[in-house]
Amino acid sequence: MADEIVPPASQLAAVSLGNDGSTVQKAQFSNRVLIRTILDRPDGGAKLAGQKIRIGGWVKTGREQGKGAFAFLEVNDGSCPANLQVMVDSSLYDLSKLVATGTCVTVDGVLKVPPEGKGTKQKIELSVVKVIDVGIVDATKYPLPKTKLTLEFLRDVLHLRSRTNSISAVARIRNALAFATHSFFQEHSFLYIHTPIITTSDCEGAGEMFQATTLINYIEKLEQDLIDNPPPTEADVEAARLIVKERGDVVAKLKAAKASKEEITAAVAELKIAKESFAHIEERSKLKPGLPKKDGNVDYSKDFFGRQAFLTVSGQLQVETYACALSSVYTFGPTFRAENSHTSRHLAEFWMVEPEIAFADLEDDMNCAEAFVKYMCKWLLEKCYDDMELMAKNFDSGCIDRLKLVESTPFGRITYTEAIKLLEEAVAKGKEFDNNVEWGIDLASEHERYLTEVLFQKPLIVYNYPKGIKAFYMRLNDDEKTVAAMDVLVPKVGELIGGSQREERYDVIKKRIEEMGLPIEPYEWYLDLRRYGTVKHCGFGLGFERMILFATGIDNIRDVIPFPRYPGKADL
Amino acid sequence: MADEIVPPASQLAAVSLGNDGSTVQKAQFSNRVLIRTILDRPDGGAKLAGQKIRIGGWVKTGREQGKGAFAFLEVNDGSCPANLQVMVDSSLYDLSKLVATGTCVTVDGVLKVPPEGKGTKQKIELSVVKVIDVGIVDATKYPLPKTKLTLEFLRDVLHLRSRTNSISAVARIRNALAFATHSFFQEHSFLYIHTPIITTSDCEGAGEMFQATTLINYIEKLEQDLIDNPPPTEADVEAARLIVKERGDVVAKLKAAKASKEEITAAVAELKIAKESFAHIEERSKLKPGLPKKDGNVDYSKDFFGRQAFLTVSGQLQVETYACALSSVYTFGPTFRAENSHTSRHLAEFWMVEPEIAFADLEDDMNCAEAFVKYMCKWLLEKCYDDMELMAKNFDSGCIDRLKLVESTPFGRITYTEAIKLLEEAVAKGKEFDNNVEWGIDLASEHERYLTEVLFQKPLIVYNYPKGIKAFYMRLNDDEKTVAAMDVLVPKVGELIGGSQREERYDVIKKRIEEMGLPIEPYEWYLDLRRYGTVKHCGFGLGFERMILFATGIDNIRDVIPFPRYPGKADL
Repeated sequence: MADEIVPPASQLAAVSLGNDGSTVQKAQFSNRVLIRTILDRPDGGAKLAGQKIRIGGWVKTGREQGKGAFAFLEVNDGSCPANLQVMVDSSLYDLSKLVATGTCVTVDGVLKVPPEGKGTKQKIELSVVKVIDVGIVDATKYPLPKTKLTLEFLRDVLHLRSRTNSISAVARIRNALAFATHSFFQEHSFLYIHTPIITTSDCEGAGEMFQATTLINYIEKLEQDLIDNPPPTEADVEAARLIVKERGDVVAKLKAAKASKEEITAAVAELKIAKESFAHIEERSKLKPGLPKKDGNVDYSKDFFGRQAFLTVSGQLQVETYACALSSVYTFGPTFRAENSHTSRHLAEFWMVEPEIAFADLEDDMNCAEAFVKYMCKWLLEKCYDDMELMAKNFDSGCIDRLKLVESTPFGRITYTEAIKLLEEAVAKGKEFDNNVEWGIDLASEHERYLTEVLFQKPLIVYNYPKGIKAFYMRLNDDEKTVAAMDVLVPKVGELIGGSQREERYDVIKKRIEEMGLPIEPYEWYLDLRRYGTVKHCGFGLGFERMILFATGIDNIRDVIPFPRYPGKADL
Repeated sequence: MADEIVPPASQLAAVSLGNDGSTVQKAQFSNRVLIRTILDRPDGGAKLAGQKIRIGGWVKTGREQGKGAFAFLEVNDGSCPANLQVMVDSSLYDLSKLVATGTCVTVDGVLKVPPEGKGTKQKIELSVVKVIDVGIVDATKYPLPKTKLTLEFLRDVLHLRSRTNSISAVARIRNALAFATHSFFQEHSFLYIHTPIITTSDCEGAGEMFQATTLINYIEKLEQDLIDNPPPTEADVEAARLIVKERGDVVAKLKAAKASKEEITAAVAELKIAKESFAHIEERSKLKPGLPKKDGNVDYSKDFFGRQAFLTVSGQLQVETYACALSSVYTFGPTFRAENSHTSRHLAEFWMVEPEIAFADLEDDMNCAEAFVKYMCKWLLEKCYDDMELMAKNFDSGCIDRLKLVESTPFGRITYTEAIKLLEEAVAKGKEFDNNVEWGIDLASEHERYLTEVLFQKPLIVYNYPKGIKAFYMRLNDDEKTVAAMDVLVPKVGELIGGSQREERYDVIKKRIEEMGLPIEPYEWYLDLRRYGTVKHCGFGLGFERMILFATGIDNIRDVIPFPRYPGKADL
């Protein structure tokens, strides 16, 4: 191989010219043409006819025709939802090994305009001249039968479900939204900050957090060791103590008798050994199986970090340290909840986008949230229209219109107090809710969806919530009853974003921490941000999977993340 | 506030025009102008003189002058390494509250060209007309004294260290490299796949993995419950069993006596209650403090996922499932090692970039790796030159030249066998290594750095390693002694990238798993990728922090990640 190796520059130049000047660009780092490059053209690829190319992909459907003289394969390589129709003559390959769904083929062929009147929508097809590689499938054993598969069924075949049209389209949409997220914030000069996954900071709801630990491993090893080498008994400890005493006596006697220096040194050395042995035996005698304890609590001194550590539930507090130094920052990464929740809206591991803006207030926060959501909708309409069409066909016929509506319509903005008034009016007119409506309640999902779907019929930002239902770090408004919090509600999923202006006043936030019965000490570093050079700032969190649910119209959050984690399930 | 709220579009338009046609763009979502917008211009901002703007930032240094008549503040807002010089008259504010390092100021002012001959390099300064907001600092208590601080000192002040020139420059460089990563792969049609953090797959080196668990919490609760409600004794269980027996006898007797249906039904109901009570008591009697055990191993059925779960050490295996469906994919996220390693090169939590390419071989892999590294170097030179100058000044005078060299020079490419030959030649000529050189060894860091720094003096790709020192999934070469693996070695850090063509042949990979003494069952899903529609594919992993070390010349990996985690340390 060494002789053949060429630098990437030569691959970059690997462009073949179509017979009418159309060019089809070869993929880089892979000797083939992406199917999207052929089909995603105004002419559907027709002008590329005559070009000789190599493609690779997986057979979606295959059928032998002409009494086995040739086969038609619908081949997909993941670069777009559309398949390329590929025609193979039986003289080239054993067709029975090519037609099974899931078969992987790499072929050289010539692009041709299919004969008219075949009833196909294809503008171009590939006529194979050579079969390069085949990854066969035994159709009788393939875990993905050709029948229509439910999303629920596919959740048990995580390693293969990306081969289905729906899940691969979701993967492309998810990729597009992730890159749109980075593009949006980078265009606005926000710096991407990697907040930690393992944290010792979130001391609020520790019960619903995962621990990141090596302690169980430590205990297992210890317990095995205690079996292999039973710990000393009390008698052993006493015996060791006695030896120390005896050797101490020997030293004392020698000294009293003014023995030679050599004799005393030797005795002292013996004493030292006895003392070390005693210390070791005494320490081992205290070892117990099970969780190590200290003052009734688990002793984490033997854990990896020497203290209890968790998987983060949000990067906000940490990213604030960067906002209070670099002004506009964001974090985008996985977050965790160990909630025993089996709903279609919750995951144990999910992704969040959390911008944090210094020199900015709640209005800036709302403006940023609205611009961000619009940007993502526009991005999808521009870059994933074909995938969105598939979503509209398979899951939610209204999803494209929803994106257009959100992209083009200013979001509604009302205070929490106004929202309660509107809900009370609805109740007065006969609308029934399961949850009571009165000032002070946390809006339930049914309230949120009624506001955004029925009353406003567009995204709605509700702001200035009662302080009693919100976190300690949200800025207290002058009314001293509400805080500068805001939620963005959207049709289909309800709450998509939650954010707030942060309390930047040292005295006020300290009082709030105390009011809420939280300990001050773990927040000292957070308070430092207010003690020294404090700045008005705000931020929000967008649940990334919720954005995908909103965009695609898919119902279950387990279907919009590649590897869903929930109680009892962490496949792969 | 409701009345004042305006949609973002009005902010977008907020551009003020300079007196010579230069414009200074206001930041969005924050009512101010970014300092970079002023200073990062060919004229250093001079043409903006006369414009009235608002800026916000933190005072780097401040000094009162003219016997307290005015103060000069060097203000930084994180948007670039350079500070804006800000002049405040004592009539506007108590100057003593502005000059302390770390003070946050928001001010309105007019941009002015500083008087000549002041010996300053500043092309523009801000003359304040109004002080809007101040976040004061008590200099006697501020944890970051104005003296030169070592990176080591700053590791204990994680929440404030981003306010220093060095750490904020690293943050901008890290941000740039992260976005360059996404841009590179998106430009080449790779899809970003979020591989899981919590995994049940990595069954190789479980000893060096963190567990993600709720089991400790479960045990604590159980142990407390056993204290509050002592478990039933054997006598309690026996008593409960006896009641079941007695009530069973009663039912039997009634049936034998052909008692009334009501009587029998009542007795059966009593029996049912007794049975339930017995089952409950018996179950509770088995509860024990400590780790729950089954067949001598920890019983994870009570853990969140019902089985042992870990923090991922690599997303490779999982991302392969998407490569084998969507062709070109990558993952970029945090990975974890619970290694008790205290070196300057290891972290317990670090970020990895892992592309995976279908229809591609080892040569494609090398081409991709080389193009990616070059792309990142070019990106930094184009977008972070000022930050790189700071790195050159503070840490490594050669770092900019190194980026230029790597960006412009084709990487060397030699086989492992050739590398060994070169090292043996060096030894023959008198070069001394701590580690022995012979075919079959894993190259030590000293060997790698000698090859790239001394022999080649540029990045070097070594490929085709002995199979004995590499992972089971690497493709066996035809010589059956080596595998299609490759490492990219770069000056300053040694190994930057490790990759391979993956073994796509079912029989071969299965044999390799068995050869290496690994269990087959946990890899069945991975084998499925080869069983059904297998495809030639390859990929690599780039240690993101190593890339930053390489770029910046900083020595310790703990200084190039915002929140470093290592044994005994997980602050914030």
